[in-house]
Amino acid sequence: MGKRIITISREFGSGGRTIANEVANRLGYAFYDKALVERIARESGYSTDFVERRGEDATSTSSFLFNLARSASGGFEGYSDISDKLYVTQHNIIKRLPEEGPCVIVGRCSDYILKDAPDALHVFIYADMQFKTDRIVKLYGERDDAPEKRLEEKDKKRKVYYKNFTGRIWGMSANYDISLNSGKLGIESCIDIIVELAKR
Amino acid sequence: MGKRIITISREFGSGGRTIANEVANRLGYAFYDKALVERIARESGYSTDFVERRGEDATSTSSFLFNLARSASGGFEGYSDISDKLYVTQHNIIKRLPEEGPCVIVGRCSDYILKDAPDALHVFIYADMQFKTDRIVKLYGERDDAPEKRLEEKDKKRKVYYKNFTGRIWGMSANYDISLNSGKLGIESCIDIIVELAKR
Repeated sequence: MGKRIITISREFGSGGRTIANEVANRLGYAFYDKALVERIARESGYSTDFVERRGEDATSTSSFLFNLARSASGGFEGYSDISDKLYVTQHNIIKRLPEEGPCVIVGRCSDYILKDAPDALHVFIYADMQFKTDRIVKLYGERDDAPEKRLEEKDKKRKVYYKNFTGRIWGMSANYDISLNSGKLGIESCIDIIVELAKR
Repeated sequence: MGKRIITISREFGSGGRTIANEVANRLGYAFYDKALVERIARESGYSTDFVERRGEDATSTSSFLFNLARSASGGFEGYSDISDKLYVTQHNIIKRLPEEGPCVIVGRCSDYILKDAPDALHVFIYADMQFKTDRIVKLYGERDDAPEKRLEEKDKKRKVYYKNFTGRIWGMSANYDISLNSGKLGIESCIDIIVELAKR
């Protein structure tokens, strides 16, 4: 019968998006990464660039403090409200995706939003620091700040964002059906395992 | 070239030990579960029963408080010392196992102790509560306390024990090369994936 819906959460630099793309290709499934950002932009009225920046990463401002201030004041206009609005739009779009046909979705709390979806497979891809730094330098080039710093900042934001909207700890095995170390197992092996499980 | 050493950490009731046993059978590897307990007992001088009870689960007594008291007093005879002694024996035995040939090791912080071993594959097996409760009632029968309570208590002890000796959070994907939800994927699929990865 197989898995019609595959969500792939990933550490920055782990190759998770590449794996997701290839899994979608091999299975002939729709692929929601940039296409998801574009749809959220269309439905929320924000630009794709804005959604890209704000839709998955929290700012360094503590969302705890924002939530505290918001509940104290009974709601205020500010960053947190925009984040919430984007999340609600994103949540509703992702929730409806399974109705449109088989697909692979990258990140954006899709593992949580579709946790009760039938025929879904939830995957987490991560890797050791060396693998990830080598990969982002190769893909995105050298920058002023060290690759380790870029990786840590990006994943820290994803962690905060995920915790804020799902209440879960990002990267805990229990959130997913399978977690794979792409650095250790190799990107090809990860693709093979996911495709094979999807077909079962 | 393949993986000569496979460590399998598992939630109680997830079928991790069954999976480990079958992986060892199919690969023709030595299997260290009871055999490891027996060896620790032999080398530490404690009974196998004592090692079984004390060797992987912390007591409900906070090890933090014990460690605090111990450092304040410059070391004292008590539960914590026995735990430490057992851990050191266990650590040394597990560290030497790869020299004796290919093997599958169940739990006992083996993922951490052999984290730098070449040709090792570190696996975590877990499952949802329903799968685990059904399984332990089927395997070990009904008892006075609810199966959910038995599961939670056992895993809580393993978590504390693991954190105490490794400093890591038990069940975080990053500790392992692959994490598998045996309830969702099925025990047979888990065995197939691990055997396949071990052969690569």
